[in-house]
Parts: sequence; structure tokens; C-alpha cells
Amino acid sequence: MTYNIEMLPREKVFRDPIHNYIHVQHKVILDLINTKEFQRLRRVKQLGTSSFTFHGAEHSRFGHCIGVYEITRQICDNFQRNYSTKKPGDGLWDDNERIVALCAALLHDVGHGPYSHTFEHIFNTDHEMWTRKIITSPETEINQVLRQVSDDFPEKVASVISHTYPNPQVVQMISSQIDADRMDYLLRDAYFTGTKYGMFDLTRILRVMRPYKGGIAFDYDGMHAVEDYVLSRFQMYQQVYFHPVSRGMEVVLTKLLQRAKDLYEHNHMNGFEMPSLLIPFFEEKVIIDDYLLLDDGILNTYFTLWQSYPDEILKDLAYRFLSRKPFKSAKYDHKTKHLLPEIADIVESVGFQKRYYTDTNTSYDLPYDVYNPNSSKSKTQIEIMQADGSLIELSTISRLVNALTGKISGDERFYFPKSMLIKHADDIFSDEYDKFQQHIHNDKII
Amino acid sequence: MTYNIEMLPREKVFRDPIHNYIHVQHKVILDLINTKEFQRLRRVKQLGTSSFTFHGAEHSRFGHCIGVYEITRQICDNFQRNYSTKKPGDGLWDDNERIVALCAALLHDVGHGPYSHTFEHIFNTDHEMWTRKIITSPETEINQVLRQVSDDFPEKVASVISHTYPNPQVVQMISSQIDADRMDYLLRDAYFTGTKYGMFDLTRILRVMRPYKGGIAFDYDGMHAVEDYVLSRFQMYQQVYFHPVSRGMEVVLTKLLQRAKDLYEHNHMNGFEMPSLLIPFFEEKVIIDDYLLLDDGILNTYFTLWQSYPDEILKDLAYRFLSRKPFKSAKYDHKTKHLLPEIADIVESVGFQKRYYTDTNTSYDLPYDVYNPNSSKSKTQIEIMQADGSLIELSTISRLVNALTGKISGDERFYFPKSMLIKHADDIFSDEYDKFQQHIHNDKII
Amino acid sequence: MTYNIEMLPREKVFRDPIHNYIHVQHKVILDLINTKEFQRLRRVKQLGTSSFTFHGAEHSRFGHCIGVYEITRQICDNFQRNYSTKKPGDGLWDDNERIVALCAALLHDVGHGPYSHTFEHIFNTDHEMWTRKIITSPETEINQVLRQVSDDFPEKVASVISHTYPNPQVVQMISSQIDADRMDYLLRDAYFTGTKYGMFDLTRILRVMRPYKGGIAFDYDGMHAVEDYVLSRFQMYQQVYFHPVSRGMEVVLTKLLQRAKDLYEHNHMNGFEMPSLLIPFFEEKVIIDDYLLLDDGILNTYFTLWQSYPDEILKDLAYRFLSRKPFKSAKYDHKTKHLLPEIADIVESVGFQKRYYTDTNTSYDLPYDVYNPNSSKSKTQIEIMQADGSLIELSTISRLVNALTGKISGDERFYFPKSMLIKHADDIFSDEYDKFQQHIHNDKII
Amino acid sequence: MTYNIEMLPREKVFRDPIHNYIHVQHKVILDLINTKEFQRLRRVKQLGTSSFTFHGAEHSRFGHCIGVYEITRQICDNFQRNYSTKKPGDGLWDDNERIVALCAALLHDVGHGPYSHTFEHIFNTDHEMWTRKIITSPETEINQVLRQVSDDFPEKVASVISHTYPNPQVVQMISSQIDADRMDYLLRDAYFTGTKYGMFDLTRILRVMRPYKGGIAFDYDGMHAVEDYVLSRFQMYQQVYFHPVSRGMEVVLTKLLQRAKDLYEHNHMNGFEMPSLLIPFFEEKVIIDDYLLLDDGILNTYFTLWQSYPDEILKDLAYRFLSRKPFKSAKYDHKTKHLLPEIADIVESVGFQKRYYTDTNTSYDLPYDVYNPNSSKSKTQIEIMQADGSLIELSTISRLVNALTGKISGDERFYFPKSMLIKHADDIFSDEYDKFQQHIHNDKII
Repeated sequence: MTYNIEMLPREKVFRDPIHNYIHVQHKVILDLINTKEFQRLRRVKQLGTSSFTFHGAEHSRFGHCIGVYEITRQICDNFQRNYSTKKPGDGLWDDNERIVALCAALLHDVGHGPYSHTFEHIFNTDHEMWTRKIITSPETEINQVLRQVSDDFPEKVASVISHTYPNPQVVQMISSQIDADRMDYLLRDAYFTGTKYGMFDLTRILRVMRPYKGGIAFDYDGMHAVEDYVLSRFQMYQQVYFHPVSRGMEVVLTKLLQRAKDLYEHNHMNGFEMPSLLIPFFEEKVIIDDYLLLDDGILNTYFTLWQSYPDEILKDLAYRFLSRKPFKSAKYDHKTKHLLPEIADIVESVGFQKRYYTDTNTSYDLPYDVYNPNSSKSKTQIEIMQADGSLIELSTISRLVNALTGKISGDERFYFPKSMLIKHADDIFSDEYDKFQQHIHNDKII
Repeated sequence: MTYNIEMLPREKVFRDPIHNYIHVQHKVILDLINTKEFQRLRRVKQLGTSSFTFHGAEHSRFGHCIGVYEITRQICDNFQRNYSTKKPGDGLWDDNERIVALCAALLHDVGHGPYSHTFEHIFNTDHEMWTRKIITSPETEINQVLRQVSDDFPEKVASVISHTYPNPQVVQMISSQIDADRMDYLLRDAYFTGTKYGMFDLTRILRVMRPYKGGIAFDYDGMHAVEDYVLSRFQMYQQVYFHPVSRGMEVVLTKLLQRAKDLYEHNHMNGFEMPSLLIPFFEEKVIIDDYLLLDDGILNTYFTLWQSYPDEILKDLAYRFLSRKPFKSAKYDHKTKHLLPEIADIVESVGFQKRYYTDTNTSYDLPYDVYNPNSSKSKTQIEIMQADGSLIELSTISRLVNALTGKISGDERFYFPKSMLIKHADDIFSDEYDKFQQHIHNDKII
Repeated sequence: MTYNIEMLPREKVFRDPIHNYIHVQHKVILDLINTKEFQRLRRVKQLGTSSFTFHGAEHSRFGHCIGVYEITRQICDNFQRNYSTKKPGDGLWDDNERIVALCAALLHDVGHGPYSHTFEHIFNTDHEMWTRKIITSPETEINQVLRQVSDDFPEKVASVISHTYPNPQVVQMISSQIDADRMDYLLRDAYFTGTKYGMFDLTRILRVMRPYKGGIAFDYDGMHAVEDYVLSRFQMYQQVYFHPVSRGMEVVLTKLLQRAKDLYEHNHMNGFEMPSLLIPFFEEKVIIDDYLLLDDGILNTYFTLWQSYPDEILKDLAYRFLSRKPFKSAKYDHKTKHLLPEIADIVESVGFQKRYYTDTNTSYDLPYDVYNPNSSKSKTQIEIMQADGSLIELSTISRLVNALTGKISGDERFYFPKSMLIKHADDIFSDEYDKFQQHIHNDKII
Repeated sequence: MTYNIEMLPREKVFRDPIHNYIHVQHKVILDLINTKEFQRLRRVKQLGTSSFTFHGAEHSRFGHCIGVYEITRQICDNFQRNYSTKKPGDGLWDDNERIVALCAALLHDVGHGPYSHTFEHIFNTDHEMWTRKIITSPETEINQVLRQVSDDFPEKVASVISHTYPNPQVVQMISSQIDADRMDYLLRDAYFTGTKYGMFDLTRILRVMRPYKGGIAFDYDGMHAVEDYVLSRFQMYQQVYFHPVSRGMEVVLTKLLQRAKDLYEHNHMNGFEMPSLLIPFFEEKVIIDDYLLLDDGILNTYFTLWQSYPDEILKDLAYRFLSRKPFKSAKYDHKTKHLLPEIADIVESVGFQKRYYTDTNTSYDLPYDVYNPNSSKSKTQIEIMQADGSLIELSTISRLVNALTGKISGDERFYFPKSMLIKHADDIFSDEYDKFQQHIHNDKII
């Protein structure tokens, strides 16, 4: 099927620090960017609490989304120029797929709310489900724009994001172990944090990408560029995304939202300025309009107001979050995990309710894996195409990738207030502090 | 006078995309960064509405402030190493001034509120006054930290920012035509916008800076680096800070705040969720605690709520702001200025109240000027030191700087809703639209 | 006329630090690169003696030439995509011109010899003439490759370089005040020297370039990017190309070649290993085969051998050049020029023959000029295209460019051995040294 | 022992693309840079034949050597500031070691000749031996400068380079698995080739380096930066240093020098312009003065002359080298190695003498290894210092480094003329060509 897609009279560009310029050529793309739902992404930070560790990383999901669009556009250009289909079923690229790929790339994260991970955990919601709803619900501006392409177009776009779209090339472009999404965020997050770990050679990877029947493969020549991308991804997770201080702020946020929810459920917020935009979430009766009002600033505004609520815990946690007082942490493992209840009790004994002042936080990532037909969440492995057209899986030819394949990386940490680590010589609780501190050695629970 | 300043046991660093690392060596600096007033700067964007044009430019004032601190620290290091005073009055650097310089650098922007320029204009307030108040009022955490140095230290720091501190080297470091403040923001804004105009050779400028009795001069060898800085400054103003689209969003914001204020003053907000944190500003009775609660997110939160107020103008303007629908514009000059009332009337005639849907916006900058003893706002000119120690003013040896000296650059624009530019053939107001459009030619009012 | 140009089965790329990749798509381009005459450019430094000042700037003319090709290719791509001719005479781009443009871009500097400027001055030769000869002489591999396109193709390519090709778009691409040649060398030389002055926004300039009947113009939107390019060019000349130390090495080289020529002419080289490859130049009877053997290494090899010749002056100058002992200098002007003979006499009086140990060196550049119909060397001015298609010359809308327009920048320096500046207290010539030193003050002759 | 080292009145800087500025503060360093032996390094390329693959990589050993000096200087500054020795034997840094470290860093490569690896192989010489000789022989300018520090200073500097200097901190700074030498060349070669694989976070590594009794360790915090360096090193070897095309040029060079040597030994060069500067090498009777005359340009000059010698093989190989006609290659392994004599015979059968037109070339690197007390060439392993001061070897905590530890990486290739791969249908030798081509499949010998 060929859509009759309207082109802009003149290409429009957005200046972008990662891709230099983002080129918009289709009217539907420009219209999508101009919807209120898409513009909301300007008010949701890409990295949540990471900006408390890397102060440059204040960039929003808006830039990332148009970045993913741009990489997808470049892939399509390359595929069309060099691997254009000659006849159905030849495994080459059908450029009629371009517009669905571009729209899915642009919209893949449109359902993200503020501090997604934490917020979803407390309020039992899910950004992927919201992404699909925003695309397919007739009340959104996004849906209305998409329907101008065709009535079934919103569903098609949503199905790419759900991985049920029939063309595997389109699906893998947007979502696979090496896709436009990850390539953009690694480069973008590296740029804004000011670290260098996320750098890899995007231009070269785009040059060696090629469609085949089963999806997307990479020329043998470019193996090292792909390897370098896998390493970059691994390093960004270890160095940036899993940073213990950012997670210390995430724990503060979790506890703060938990306390607010608890208070609301026990009607202890009455008599104060109510967090009206959060009430649907407290009550877990959220409609799409409620969801689309949320952004980082709204949460922060309620935190600001809560600093003058009479509840000491809410007040304290709100202050800790807004004034960046992260919880401290120590690593634990399966051998020391059993000590945590006892240690949490010590924290409680000096006056911190353990429900709100202690927590565990685990950060795990599977940097790369091969396809496993028996797994329910099986990954599309990275295929390298040899000179004679045969495919070979990446980890079989890269010693470094092989070292990461199928192995989860990360750590488990126990979080608590910083004051637990301070000497309290003349304090009534000085024994408890000492006891606590004897459990922490070399950043580990002992 | 020598302060007894406590050093940190180990230098602490912040990863920064501009300076790579920011080095904190004194406890007082770390304590200041950790105050709630300083942390608030994370929630105030550095460039206000510019991020609507350059989506990468979402960085906050927090990073800029510690960047200015870092440049100042590097200047002090250089001065101490190479130009340390031998005896009073020799015009060289007294490193006892370091701590006051560092604190002033760090805190120089601490009084900025959300969308400073626009907000101050509507609510008749002033961030410089607030900066001084935050530093000198005993209720702030910042003041409490500063007083640990000495009782009169807050006043000293404030006086650097007010330009009344006796040592001109310290004052010029923080505030002059080539100071740590401007050098940081040009580089930082260039980085985050993704433009290249703001780049100049900071390392070289720092190398050629040197103290003398009257303040700070630059070695002759480095003249071209200083020249390049002046050009970068000029280009950033023309290309980034004065961008007509950002100003189109600024006009929307101005009108939105104006409408809210008007409604409040006429008691038309009753019955709705009141913007409690703004009320002191509506009533122009603001105390420091009110001021310090404000940030970008709080304004945006009220804008979100106002989208469901029953006032059509407030609602529409809030939507335009949150969904990025900038007003369009055309240039005017002294010859066409007289046409503006008539054109505004046309806008009103098709249904847009001109008080809220038209405005003028002027952006002017004086890129560089020589010292003028007769001017009330006289500038400290940039002095170049020759081999024999004599000084020579920059514009006398740089043809390019000379071309900019004393000459204001910028433009004046008339703003209006985008729909005024669209053909309305079958519209009841089609004649008015035509009339309007005949007044606009080649981006100018005619 | 449409050439039947053979494309490569697969695009070939060269990794390039400036353009990331250089894309070769036509067989004729790859064949030209593989000729021995083109490969010789690897052995000729782009910046001659500048690498004695900026040690990173050791790059050869090879990289620059393929860089100019790449920029030209990108311009053609842009012109073809956006401004393709519809009918003859419409002033738009005819893509049949691409191949002649690409070849001329690639070959425009193929006639450069070692240390071009200096060498040509002493041996009375001219790299532009050699470029044309190499392209049009049947004995070169380059000519043989070009003739595969068509018999008259070498002449066409040469005529682009000579500015006599009929299509002004092609000529201006390669040679005008803002052409592929200059854009490449500014960026490349900035990169390799490690300075930042030569940086400008190439991507943006390429976006706003457009063909018109009279040649190439730039969209009004891109005015500031073009302005920035003009400033970069000015700054690179002032800061890099005119650096007094590089010129001090150039003077040593000039004197060394002069001495060798003098000795040869007086038969004083007999009995030693003769510089066989230079003899045609000493005798000013050079054929193309002689010329194409020359490169930097050959000159340096003879300098190495000359260090063991019995002539003291030749030996000394060869040592100075190979061991980087630049002559020192001071500025003079029309008021002090009359002193130079007298000062040169002082240099001679302490034992340095003035013919070989003193010189003047002037570095002048006209950064930008408007078209002057009365001038024999008139420049093609930079035209900015307004919204309605009318053209406006750059300096009329840029205050900075205006400040440079038509004004020559540079300086005149007198060069002499460094020892002239050293105190020689107990020396028999101490009075002469003192006299000399009294003539130099603040880097100027007085 | 404390040297009385003269400081420069004012620090001198060299503009460097990698380190921005290189800071020279001691007179002895500046004097060493100004010697003729050090200046010779400007005429020896850092990467030999790699510039035939990466045309940007034309940088010389000069820049690398002062880069290693600069990194060493920064390490010393850090050690002095943060880890200055309090009493003998405390394992901290004694800044009296600075000058020997700086000189060894600067001079560690001073014995490199043109195309070192290849040249040494044919002429049976060794750049490390020459480095020591240049430092310790009284006839060099370098030795004379070093002796101004003290009579035994040249020997001390040489002993650092030979790893026999008693202080392991100084030795490891210059030579270990993570030293100033490697850190500079990875960054520098990445910059000039235009690849990104060699990038790592030098600033961070320098921050976490610290002296201890046994040498140099790295803070636990910086483990990932060190890991990233090891990966960069691995990737640069795989991607840049082992590039098959560069090695194809290296083989041409080897064969060319071999042929010249063979001809000289058989007196077949008589009657032509003799390569006078190479004769000592042909005869393997080289004194230091002979060695120091050599540079890249001298070899190239003889190659130019050899193109007109009557020997067809010498002529052809010289043309191939100067005009960049690399031999082609295919991988072999222990299973196919036995086929090589047969395949070489085929090459000979079509007219290429196998002594000069076939070769094997192996590129192997051991990216990282732990200390092995039983090995004669044991490596100093990389030690990570934990919070409590205990050391832990890098590969035990890095999965990626572990994957590389002790494992050699590289490949073995068979080289031959490109024409062997071309179809020769109507050729008398068409059968031989076919036979040859059947042995090559997917870049491998079969």
C-alpha cells in the first residue's frame, strides 16, 4: 500500500546538538511535533533523577524523540538509496514503509510521564500502555493528525511500537538491541552528561546497516563499529544510568510519593491545598486527559507545597528531594541480604520510620543477548552479514561482546539517611549509630 | 585581612560538559551549593523561552552558576601562580581575595526567578535586588553559610555583585565586558543550543589575563583571542538570544501573565483553584520566602490549570504557551512605527483583543563600548597590556571590535497571531486579513 | 552535453577528520586519486613552514584536495535535490555539470610543489601554470584518466580552474570569495593546527547556498553563517597564516635556496654530491617530468646533504632550517622603512652577510571585497538572496564584514638572526649589537 | 638528590590539538626540544604506512613526544599537589624525580628512524638502542643539554627508558600497560586518523592515578575510566594499527628495501646516483651520525630516484610505494598455512618473483596481561586501590578487561599483487590466475 503523503513545500530543520540538524520533510511529521501531546515532552526530563548527579543532563524527552526520528530517517534514506526492493519478497527495503517507521520513531516515547520509572512503580501505571493509548485514542491531537494519513494508520503506528507490525525491518529500526532509540539516547545522554562513554561511530553504523528478509543486519566491515556501540551501551549503564547518587534521589522520590499516597488514603491531606492533578493517580482512576496534564514541574510544584504541610515526614522528604539530599547507600549481595531487616531496625531506632527512610534499589541490565527461542522475552540478536550474504551472530566474532552476552550487570544497594554515617558522640543514640556504622565497610554491607 | 577558610579533606568535582570538571576545594563553596536556595536554580532554565527555538537549550541556571565559579577559580589560580602580590599597592593579586571572588561568582545569579525578564516586567520585581537579599538576609541558608566565614562576609559578597567592593580586580572578574559570567554563558549556551557561534578560546584568554592596579588587563599576545570573544558575544546575541521565534513565545508569556493579573485584580479568578504561590506577586507584596518558592515548573503548573479556567483568553494563551504556538512578527522602524496602532486595530477587528494579542518587542545589545566618564552606566573598557606595561584600549587595535564599539545592535518587531498571515478566502473577515497581509512584506511592516 | 559517466559498483569512502567520510561515487574520481601525480600530493605539506609554529599542522595537500572534492560533491547534491534546472536558461543547476565540477575541485591544487610560495619565488615558477599543464599534458596519468570522459574534457577541467569555463556556478564553486577550496582549508587548517579560529558552520552554509543565473548566492536566512565564515577567514590569516615565526622559517628557507642557486651558478658545487633533482630548477629549464618528481622530502634531503658541504653559509642555513632556528623579526612601516639598509649594515658588520641573513617579509590579505568592474583582478562579491529573489551584497547588511571590506590586513617585518638580540658584553662587536638593539622596541623598528 | 633546575623566566607553550597547550617550564626541556636530534622527529611520521589508509594521519613523532612530556608533567603536578612525600619510604611522590621523568618522557622515542618497524627489520637495527645512544653519546646536542643538569644525568634518563631506574613510579609513568606514552598516542592517533575508537577520559584517569610504594595505582572510583582506556587500546589496534591496507603498503616497502639491498650487495647499483645516506645501512656499519641523518623524506627521495634505475623490480616497487599501490591480502591460519608455498609459486608462475612479490604479515597484540613472575617479559599489571588502601588487579573486577587478559589478538595475512585477483580471460596465464583465485574466498586462503 502506498500512502499519498504530503511533503512540506520546503524542508524544515531543527538545530540539534547531536545530529546537527533534524530534517523534517513530511507535513504529517511537522504536524505531530506541533501537537500538544508531543510538546508536553519538553516538560519531562529524559533522565529523571540523573540530573542530580550530572547537572548537564537536564534535557527533555522532546529532543530524544526527534533524534530517534532523525536516525530513522537517515536509515530509510540509506536503505532507499542502496537497497531498494525490486520485487516483493526480495528482502530489500520498500520505501512505502518509510512513513510508518518515521511516525513510530517520533512517537515511541510519547506516553512517558514525569520520573517515569518511580512514578509508575508507586501509581501502578505504565508508559508503554499510555503511548499506545495516546496514538490510538480519537480525543488526542496526535490521533487526529495520524488519521489524516488513513483511518487505520494510528493502529499501524502503534503496532510498530508493540512489535506486532508485520515488517521486521520497520520493527527492528525502532526496537531491537541496536535501534534508532538506543543509538540516539546513548549519544544524547553522553553529550548532556558530559561523559564520553556513550560515544560511538553512528555514521559508520548507519553505513553498514542493511535490510534482509529477517530484519536488519550489518556488513562484516562494520563489525567493530557495532561492537563499539555494544560497549558504549554497557559503559553508559554502569557509569551513568546506575549511578548510586541518582538512585539515592530516586529512593527519596519513591518514599515521598509513597508518603503522599498513604496520607491521601488516610484522609490526612484534608484542610490543605489539595494536589488536584494527582488525585486521579492516588485513586488509581486515571483517564487519558489526566495523564496528559502531568509533567515534571507539576510534581515539583506539589513538593514545594508539601514543604508547608504539617506532616513531618512528607515535609522532610519534600525538602530532601527539592534541595538534593540523596539517601546514602551500601552494596549487599545474597550473603548479606539477610542483615537488611536488622539494619533497617537500627535506622528506625534512631527515629527514622523504616517504611520511609530505608529501601533497597537494584539496577540490572542485560547488555546483549543472543536469540533464545525458549524465552518469552527473547531478543533479536545482532546479525553480521558476510561477503557471501551469510549471517553470523555478533558475539561469535567479538571477544568483547561475547564477554557481555547473556550476563546481567548491575548491583543491589541498601539506602538510608546520610546522617546514619555521621559520628554522634554525645548523642543519646550514639550506640545505635555505632552499630549501624559497623555494618558498612568499603561501600558494602557486612 | 586573611580568612581562615576551611578546605575540604579531598577536592570534590562535578562533571561538566563545558569545563569537563568543576573543582570544589573549600567547604564554604560546597555548603553554598548544597543550600536549598542554590538547589532551586536547577528548576530555573538559563535561557527561558529560547528552548522553544533551540530544543537542546534546556539547561538550568545551576550549571551556569557553578561554571562561573569554575572560571573564577581558574583565574585566581593563574593570578596566584604568576602575579602574586609582593607588597601592598603593587597592583598584583592578593590571594586573600579568592574566597570572596569565588562566593560572588557562585552566587551572582541566585536571585533569578522563572522566565526572569518577562516575569519581572509584569510583576515589577528585579532579580538583582533579590540576589542581594538572598545573600544578606539572615533567614536564608546561604546567608547562614556565608556568616561562618565572618559576620560581614555576606555584605562583602553582595558588594562584589553590586560593584561597590573596593578591589577592582575582584569586581571585574565577575562583572565587566569580559568576565567569568559572560565567558561561561556564551560557551554554555553555544554547547546546549548546538550552535557554534559562542565558541572562543577560553584557555588562551585565561592565560593572557593579568591583574593590574586598575583591575584586569590582557597581554598583547592574546589580543586576537579577546577579539574573538567579543565577536562570539555579538554573534550569540544576533543568532540565539534575539531569535524572533523565542521572542514570539516571550510575547505569548507576557500576555498570559498580564491576563492572569488582570483577572485576579478584577476578582475573576474566584471559584477556581487559586494560583496560591503567585498571589503575593499579583498583589505585589512579596517576601523572600514567597520569592524562593518560585520556579519554572510552578508557572507551568498554573498554566496547565488555567487551561480549564472559563476565561477564553487565559485558556487560549495558556494553550499557546504550553503547546508552543508562538506569535509571528515583522520588523518595523522609526519610519513605520506610526502604522502599528492601525495594524493592531485590524488584529482586533477579526476578534483578537489587541491588549492580549499584539505587542512590540525590541532586542538591543551594545556589544562593546569604551569607557565614558560622562555616562551614568559607563563600562569598564577592555585594556590590552603592551610589552612595556602600557595599556591600550581594545578597539584601537582591532578593526572588527572597532566596527562594533558603541553601536547598538538589534531590532524592533511587532507581534501578532499566526492566523493573521493565513489566507481566509471564505471568511467573513477576509477583507481585514487581506488588509493586514498587505502591511507585511519581506519580514517587514510596510 | 551529458557525459556517460561510469559509477563505481559500490561507493568508496575515505575516513576524513574534517568531513568524517569522503564519498567517491564515480570511477573517474577514484582513478584520478590513484594517479601518481595525485598521490605525490601526500608528500607536499599543505601549510609549508607553518608546521614549525603549529606542530600539528603537518597535513598534506592530498587531504585538502579530496576535502574540496567532498564539499563540491555536497553542493552538487544540494543543488540537484533542490534547485534542478527545468529548462535551459532558468538559472538553476544542470547536474551534467557535476563531473567537471568534481574533477576541477579535486585537481585544483595538483600543481603545487614543495614550500610553494618560497620555491616559486626563487626559481621563478608558478603552481597554477603547472596545474593546468598536468591536467592537459598527454604524458600525465591524470590527463589519460580525464580523456576517458572525452577528448576535450581535460581542457574543460583546466578552464574551470582558469575561470574561463562558461558556467559561473561551476567556477564559483571552486573559486570565489566563498568556495569549496577556502571552506575546506579553513576548517582543515584549524583542525590540524589545533586553533579554533577557522571553525564556522559548514553545514548551514551548504544549506543556504543556491544557484542563480550569475553564479551562486546565499539565502538571507544564512547571512550570519556567511558572515561568520568571512570572520573566520580573516582570523586564520591574522593568527595562523601570517604568524611571524613561520615567516621567520620561510625567510631561512628563501635564503638557503638563494645561496644554493648562487653557488650552483658560480660552479661552486662541483666536487660534491649534486642535487640532481634540483638542477633543472637552478637552470630554469624545467619540464613536467622534473616538476612532478619534487616534494618536501627531496628538498629536505638536499638540505641534509648540504650540511656537509664546505660552504659555511649554505651549511649554516641548512642547519637553521632543519633544526628550526627561525630568524627573528620586528615590524616596520613607511616611516621606518628607510632605516632598514642601515640596520642591515649593522647585521653585516658583526659578520652576517646581509644578502643571506637579512630580509623583509610582508604578509597581506584582502579579507573580502566587493565587485569592482574597473579592477583587473576584480572579485566576485558575495550575494545574499532576499525572500523576493532580489540580491543584496553581503557587506551592506553586515557591520562586521563591512569593517573588513576592501581593506588590506597584514604587516611588514624585517628579519635577522636571533643572536642580534642577545647581549654581547665582552664581544668585540658589542657596540654594534647595542646599536642594533636600540633600533628594536616593542616588536617594532625605531 | 635535588637538582638545581633552572626555570624559564616565563612558561612557554606549544599549541597542541590533543592537549590544547603543552606547557614548558624548565629551561632544560626547552633546550632539548631545540636540539637538532629532537627536531629531526618532525621528519619522521608517527604511524608510517598508516597514512596511506587514514590520510589524516600524517603527524610526526615530534608532536607525540611533546605530548608524552605534557601528560607526564600533569601526572607530576597531580602527584606533587596531592601525594607529596613526607618522609623517605612512605611510598609517596618525591618531586625531585620530576625532571628525570620529564626528560625521559620527552626523549623516549628519539631514536626512531623512518618507517621504523620495516626499516629495522631489513637493516637489522633497533630504535631503542639508538634512543639510548643518542641520550648517552657525548657528540649529540641532547647529551650536551642533559649534562648541564649533572654528569650522570644522561645515564639516569636512559635508565628510565631501559626500565632500570630504581624508582618504579617514574618507570611506570613512562612505560607500563597504562603510561603517558600509550595515553598520548591513542588520543593523538585517534584525532589524526579521524576515528573515534581511541578516545577515553584522560582527565579522569589523571585524577585517579596515585603513587604507592610499588609504582602507580588507580583509585577504585576511576576503574571504569581505566577499563575504557584498555578497550580503546584494543580497538585502536584492531581498527587502525592492524589495518590490512596499511600492511599491504608495509609489505611493498619491505620488498623495495630488500631489493635495493640485494642489488647493492651484488654491485648492481654502480653507475647510478648512489643512495649515499643509505650505504652505511646496506653495509650494516652505521654510526650515530649516519643514523641521525635519516628521515622519511630521505627514503622517499631514493625511491624517487630508483624509479629511473634500470632494474625493473626496483623500479616497479618504488612506483608502487610512491603511488600507493598496496599489495592485496587474504587471511590464513594454522590449517591453511601449508598452502602458502604453493600459492606463492602460482604468483611466480605469472611473472612475479615470489621473493619480491609475496609475503606474510602478522599483526599481533596482547591488549592486557597480569603480572607473571615466571615470564621474562612480564608486564606490570594495572592495580586498583580500594578505599582501605588495598590493591586489586584490574581484570578481577572488569568483565571486559578480563575477556582480553592474556589473550593475543590479531591476524596473519598472505600478501600478493592486486592483479592476481583480476580476471585475465584472454591471457596466456589465465589458468594460473584462475587457480590462484580459487584459493581466495571471503578474505581467506582456502
